[in-house]
Amino acid sequence: MAQLRAFESARRQGADIPEITCFEKQADWGGQWNYSWRTGLDGHGEPVHSSMYRHLWSNGPKECLEFSDYSFDEHFGQAISSYPPRSALFDYIEGRAVKSDVRKYIQFSTAARWVDYDDAAREFTVLVEDLVTKQTRKHVFDKLVVSTGHFSTPNVPEFEGIGTFPGPVLHAHDFRGAEQFAGKNVLLVGSSYSAEDIGMQTYKMGAASATISYRSKPMGFRWPDGAREVPTIERIDGQHVIFADGSSGRFDAVILCTGYRHKFPFLPGSLALSTPNVLYPANLYKGIVWQGNPDLFYIGMQDQYYTFNMFDAQAWLARDYIMGRREVPGNLERQEDIQLWLQKQEALHTHEDEVDFQTDYVKDLISLTDYPPFDLDAVAVLFKQWMHDKEENILGYRDGVHTSVMTGTTASAHHTAWLDAMDDSIEAYLSTPIGSQP
Amino acid sequence: MAQLRAFESARRQGADIPEITCFEKQADWGGQWNYSWRTGLDGHGEPVHSSMYRHLWSNGPKECLEFSDYSFDEHFGQAISSYPPRSALFDYIEGRAVKSDVRKYIQFSTAARWVDYDDAAREFTVLVEDLVTKQTRKHVFDKLVVSTGHFSTPNVPEFEGIGTFPGPVLHAHDFRGAEQFAGKNVLLVGSSYSAEDIGMQTYKMGAASATISYRSKPMGFRWPDGAREVPTIERIDGQHVIFADGSSGRFDAVILCTGYRHKFPFLPGSLALSTPNVLYPANLYKGIVWQGNPDLFYIGMQDQYYTFNMFDAQAWLARDYIMGRREVPGNLERQEDIQLWLQKQEALHTHEDEVDFQTDYVKDLISLTDYPPFDLDAVAVLFKQWMHDKEENILGYRDGVHTSVMTGTTASAHHTAWLDAMDDSIEAYLSTPIGSQP
Repeated sequence: MAQLRAFESARRQGADIPEITCFEKQADWGGQWNYSWRTGLDGHGEPVHSSMYRHLWSNGPKECLEFSDYSFDEHFGQAISSYPPRSALFDYIEGRAVKSDVRKYIQFSTAARWVDYDDAAREFTVLVEDLVTKQTRKHVFDKLVVSTGHFSTPNVPEFEGIGTFPGPVLHAHDFRGAEQFAGKNVLLVGSSYSAEDIGMQTYKMGAASATISYRSKPMGFRWPDGAREVPTIERIDGQHVIFADGSSGRFDAVILCTGYRHKFPFLPGSLALSTPNVLYPANLYKGIVWQGNPDLFYIGMQDQYYTFNMFDAQAWLARDYIMGRREVPGNLERQEDIQLWLQKQEALHTHEDEVDFQTDYVKDLISLTDYPPFDLDAVAVLFKQWMHDKEENILGYRDGVHTSVMTGTTASAHHTAWLDAMDDSIEAYLSTPIGSQP
Repeated sequence: MAQLRAFESARRQGADIPEITCFEKQADWGGQWNYSWRTGLDGHGEPVHSSMYRHLWSNGPKECLEFSDYSFDEHFGQAISSYPPRSALFDYIEGRAVKSDVRKYIQFSTAARWVDYDDAAREFTVLVEDLVTKQTRKHVFDKLVVSTGHFSTPNVPEFEGIGTFPGPVLHAHDFRGAEQFAGKNVLLVGSSYSAEDIGMQTYKMGAASATISYRSKPMGFRWPDGAREVPTIERIDGQHVIFADGSSGRFDAVILCTGYRHKFPFLPGSLALSTPNVLYPANLYKGIVWQGNPDLFYIGMQDQYYTFNMFDAQAWLARDYIMGRREVPGNLERQEDIQLWLQKQEALHTHEDEVDFQTDYVKDLISLTDYPPFDLDAVAVLFKQWMHDKEENILGYRDGVHTSVMTGTTASAHHTAWLDAMDDSIEAYLSTPIGSQP
């Protein structure tokens, strides 16, 4: 959506933009934010894309992800809280997409099956399947932008004896809500956002206990009673799980919050980005231009503090390269630039360092484009405040309010504390409950 | 495995067989029988192939699926029961594959990504990805045999309000065991083998109730107390499910036993079989030769009474066509033959009719090849006996014994009734429990 918006933005300013086609596997837009109750394979037998779940509320301040060309004020016409539910964020990103009328570029229910690149002709041939008619079509393009995300394909390691566990074993990708874990002892495996948030979801929904198993180091939040962190799994024997420190427990469910894989089954190995989830994947100049073939672009393949506005900055720059407004430098110059960023990445120690690194990265992108600039240092301060708030109160940080860097608007306090909010619909979110003080 | 065995069988009889390559996405053979605790996407991010589960015991007599060139007697060296657990059937099919040394033809952990057919050269180009190295390779073949099965990609319809159901909603494909449903009220949607068997699994594992919702007509077995059939779902409202007859219930879990789709994401629409699950899919001459291109073969795409030995008969005939031992007739002759079978299929009314139809089909195949013939009429009688046994006792039919058509051996009674058998390992299956009478 960012990429389409980038082109449409140029077109509306009078530029002669190239012919654009966007293939979307799902029947609607929104990607990760297009929630589905389905798990595993979807109605067409394609892997379900979204990894979101009921009662997912933003786990970062909305003020950190605000578009600089489409504010929350513009969309909602009123101040809203800093941590909206999924439904409200979907509404926000959809609002911009509708306003910029980019739907016309999208062929929905169309899965990219295979991509070939012809070196001589410098052309991509893209084979797509219309999932409704089951017809295959062939399209030829000069440039290709891959923006399929990387939080869709679960990374699922093997654990000794996991096959003997009699209860549900699911990856966070297939988690759709914690209601079923009320009264249960839940084991969460992982030590990042999914483990933290799904762990606290199970707590919120009445789990008897939430045990979070880390591989290298605990998250160390001040967990509520009934939640704790333990080291990595040594082995599983039925319901009994033994951890690396010799401790053990008996569990009713295992949720693997073990991260995601960058996966591009429609790309040949020579074009497919292969990377762990890091702030600066190797082989991407400016984080977007495929080093092996500068006609190929990737959007949003980084590990993320910044999200929506970083994707925008990337998309705006990709657009300028594609339209020839800015020349992609030669191989060596690209490689040197990539190396510089990789070296900086090597030197990062703390989460604060990481925020500063990605702030610098987004600044660099914006300096190269006409994406409306904004005060990135102020956003970096917000990220650090957010991290501090989480340290202080993992169950309550979402009740805090922040001030928009884009508009200066201070968020309103939500009518219900996150821990008590049991309706995540946009209607409930935007309503003023009877008896509450506005 | 049947196709590889067919070629190897010819080679061992001195024939000059073509060069054969088999691409297998999984790290081991067995396909559907290669059980995995994983659900959704596998360790490489590919859709999990197997739809099997813990405590799956054959739901048809082994005497109906016995290979005519590799008997149960030969494999086990002793009489075994008529309804073995998955582990024992996997062992059996693996035993023949090991004996015939076909592993050498297989490239494991290799996913077929895309197939192109060149009309002029009459060649298939197959693009595969090595899932370990992530390298893409291109292979060219004169003939292509598709034997990926069709019980892997779930068919998951939408039901009004299903997104509001707070408990687990899973397709039978992702069901791995009923232990977690002890004490729960489980709703199963569907009216075929999965609904019946998973429903009875939940009963066996202590579910409070098993309610099976049919779309067109109930299975009508003599269900045990706590199990019942209801019409199709009208709508779902949280845990509350309303059925078409106005009745309703409150459920803890929904298992969608709504069947599977023929899905070939690696094939262009022009080569991909598109069919409901029927005994005689259109466009396949002799059930195996793709009418649109007789260089392309499909194995095992039928709805099935016969299984292993039908796949054999198909594979033997495909082999003979491929090796030119038998000529594939022209387009018109093929079409006429297909029409004849489709007309016969139209006239089927009862399950008995269906058995007779598939018996005739397998007879026809075997008459055209050197696959060791066997008494198919006797097998048809077994199928009808089996259907009768199920009508009599849906929880006890697996305790019956049948006599092999291939060897005349009568099965032994298993040491434990199916309802009480809580260990489905091959070791437990083949053991003589202490205190039991051999």
